Amino acid sequence: MVKLKTSESVELDFRPIEPILEQIKADDFGGWVTAGVDKEELKQIKAAAAKIQKESDYLVCIGIGGSYLGHRAVIEALECQTSDAGVEVLYSGNSLSEFELNRILDIIDGHDFSVNVISKSGTTTEPAVAFRIFKQKLIEKYGEEEAKNRIYATTDQAKGALHDEAVQKGYTTFVVPDNVGGRYSVLTAVGLLPIAAAGVDVDALLEGARDEARLAGLLPTIDELGEERYETDRAKTDAYKYAILRSSLMNRGFNTEVLASFEPRLAMLHEWWKQLFGESEGKNEQGIFPASVVYTTDLHSMGQFMQQGRRDLFETVMHFASDGVDDEITVPEEDGALDGLTYLEGCPLSGINEKALEATITAHRAGNIPVFELEVKKIDAENLGRLIYFFELACAVSGMLQGVNPFDQPGVEQYKREMFHLLGKPGF
Amino acid sequence: MVKLKTSESVELDFRPIEPILEQIKADDFGGWVTAGVDKEELKQIKAAAAKIQKESDYLVCIGIGGSYLGHRAVIEALECQTSDAGVEVLYSGNSLSEFELNRILDIIDGHDFSVNVISKSGTTTEPAVAFRIFKQKLIEKYGEEEAKNRIYATTDQAKGALHDEAVQKGYTTFVVPDNVGGRYSVLTAVGLLPIAAAGVDVDALLEGARDEARLAGLLPTIDELGEERYETDRAKTDAYKYAILRSSLMNRGFNTEVLASFEPRLAMLHEWWKQLFGESEGKNEQGIFPASVVYTTDLHSMGQFMQQGRRDLFETVMHFASDGVDDEITVPEEDGALDGLTYLEGCPLSGINEKALEATITAHRAGNIPVFELEVKKIDAENLGRLIYFFELACAVSGMLQGVNPFDQPGVEQYKREMFHLLGKPGF
Repeated sequence: MVKLKTSESVELDFRPIEPILEQIKADDFGGWVTAGVDKEELKQIKAAAAKIQKESDYLVCIGIGGSYLGHRAVIEALECQTSDAGVEVLYSGNSLSEFELNRILDIIDGHDFSVNVISKSGTTTEPAVAFRIFKQKLIEKYGEEEAKNRIYATTDQAKGALHDEAVQKGYTTFVVPDNVGGRYSVLTAVGLLPIAAAGVDVDALLEGARDEARLAGLLPTIDELGEERYETDRAKTDAYKYAILRSSLMNRGFNTEVLASFEPRLAMLHEWWKQLFGESEGKNEQGIFPASVVYTTDLHSMGQFMQQGRRDLFETVMHFASDGVDDEITVPEEDGALDGLTYLEGCPLSGINEKALEATITAHRAGNIPVFELEVKKIDAENLGRLIYFFELACAVSGMLQGVNPFDQPGVEQYKREMFHLLGKPGF
Repeated sequence: MVKLKTSESVELDFRPIEPILEQIKADDFGGWVTAGVDKEELKQIKAAAAKIQKESDYLVCIGIGGSYLGHRAVIEALECQTSDAGVEVLYSGNSLSEFELNRILDIIDGHDFSVNVISKSGTTTEPAVAFRIFKQKLIEKYGEEEAKNRIYATTDQAKGALHDEAVQKGYTTFVVPDNVGGRYSVLTAVGLLPIAAAGVDVDALLEGARDEARLAGLLPTIDELGEERYETDRAKTDAYKYAILRSSLMNRGFNTEVLASFEPRLAMLHEWWKQLFGESEGKNEQGIFPASVVYTTDLHSMGQFMQQGRRDLFETVMHFASDGVDDEITVPEEDGALDGLTYLEGCPLSGINEKALEATITAHRAGNIPVFELEVKKIDAENLGRLIYFFELACAVSGMLQGVNPFDQPGVEQYKREMFHLLGKPGF
């Protein structure tokens, strides 16, 4: 389980979340709450992943926002733990950069590749443009028929441009569920197909998430008599505590949350987290501004500000007891070294990194920053599943505590309307 | 020149910066103010870069903070504009991640490589550990003598562990100037050696910076009669305006600045900027919190918060008139397409990206966010030099306006002391 540790000696008041807990049970919160994927669908996802692995050197994943960040976060975090069969996943359609598109086109040149286009509507500009380009490349390389065989469309189950094209052309399709918003969708087909294709153990990922759901009383456990039983002791559910504490910090004027970890390959997980919380809470001219740092790198850049800057921020440190890396590296011995490292000779880097984490929490607390520590066992599929679920649940509850709808994003349309107007799109 | 555009109808009051301008002339601000590099030193940097290019497939740059972010920012931004001779630069010693170290070791395996270790003291834990490891790899691969020939040490000119080791072993050395702080050092040997080795035009980079210095009245121009003349019309220097306006926003309660660009390969430039401003201003429990977004990617994650979240932030958008990419990509035609993109067929992506930028500025201003627009001609060496100088000057002046010393970083030591204590370092 994800364990919250905090130096804040706050008496937790669970009363404000009573009505929220009722709503969760009523499933108003969306399909992600049960972290469930239909058995047949999961089988199809795995089969498609295996087919992609067999036929391709690369899988080009086309998507933006919630159709992009989650699976990239998981795949990059678990890069050293994927199965040998895993295909290399590339990401496109997430910007309008010519440089980025050229870069991906250069990589796939001369290689076999497949495409997973992920878009509920099929008309979002960035992925739609990229999809045209990679579709054209597939047809040039393989011909019309085989191109169709290499396109996997994750889209609305019944309507929309991509859905209609997929039906017309006969692409393999997967569903973006109606009751799961983009930023909560990583554990649906949206994220699971690329994650499975990359060689990550999706069963472990889902099981981790479901176990957190059980701890939160949102899925049943089976007791000794074979009876279903729901956990009702909310004190066991640190996601609720985290939601309450961070919202109470906001009410006390702490308006920026900095998510920290000590492992660069988690950078995309931070980006996923920023969308999850920023898009859920940032409305009605309020919300906690989500920022992130990767230590120890950023102790040498943002560290000064964290230690002594404006005191209206708080920090949430993800603390993995194991970095999930098999090839341990230790500080080598060196005769007559002048660098002052003799006392560290033979120490594994992971051990030094661990001490750096502990030291940072101590130093920042001494600098009067409230620090939450999220203890997680290991960077692996199961525990990432736990962490994803933990954050989704905490985010939804936080939004409700702050009096906003954590599942909409009304402000995202405004720049699009301005852009369509400037580009001369019919109707704008 | 870097041109500041703003919708803020603020009457600029230059009086508070009069004493600051006096200090700049007195060179109390440090050696970066003149953006000058000694001719002989520059020749040696170029010679070393050429030698590295000839002898190696990879240059492993070891450094952290100010000995890391600046050159990585420049090299990644100009990746598509480097000379063919350029060596691929890898970055190590900037974290304690075993995964990251293994990743770099895997890349260089079986290839020729050189090492540029950048550290004023030579005892900072992260780079010192990495240096031991890569030094050992060099010795294993090339033997003691040739290893020394492949190590380039950028360090203090007179003292310190790395300086002493370099003298003892006979490494080629370059100087971290005493009068330039780490975060202001990218245009000294600290940044210039890796930048030159990567194949970037360092003359253009330096000339761009020097031209901004001339505009700011900090370097002379030569008039028609061959006389040196200093620009004295500060209204021509948008770096001063930017410093005044952002500090006045801070005084009005805007406490977070979000730096935005529309090109993913500028992500490291954002990181450099965050260190520059965060470390310069974040002290005495004050300062503007520096954050960053890369659009259009982050319009689909942080866009909601930017549009409708807490209104105590302002945004600074870097607007490059040209993306510096030669291989233009246009939206392909597609018969019977359902994606609604027909109106964009034949349009270059860079043009759509440009409209997205304009639309974002309009939308965010409509959402009551103060937006600064920094107009720059092109993503190229000359204009990056301009931008770097612009930000350094604006940052130094901002810090002074906010009443803090923009050149120290007293808070960075605290976590180190805690860490050394936990690790059992002698004396802690």
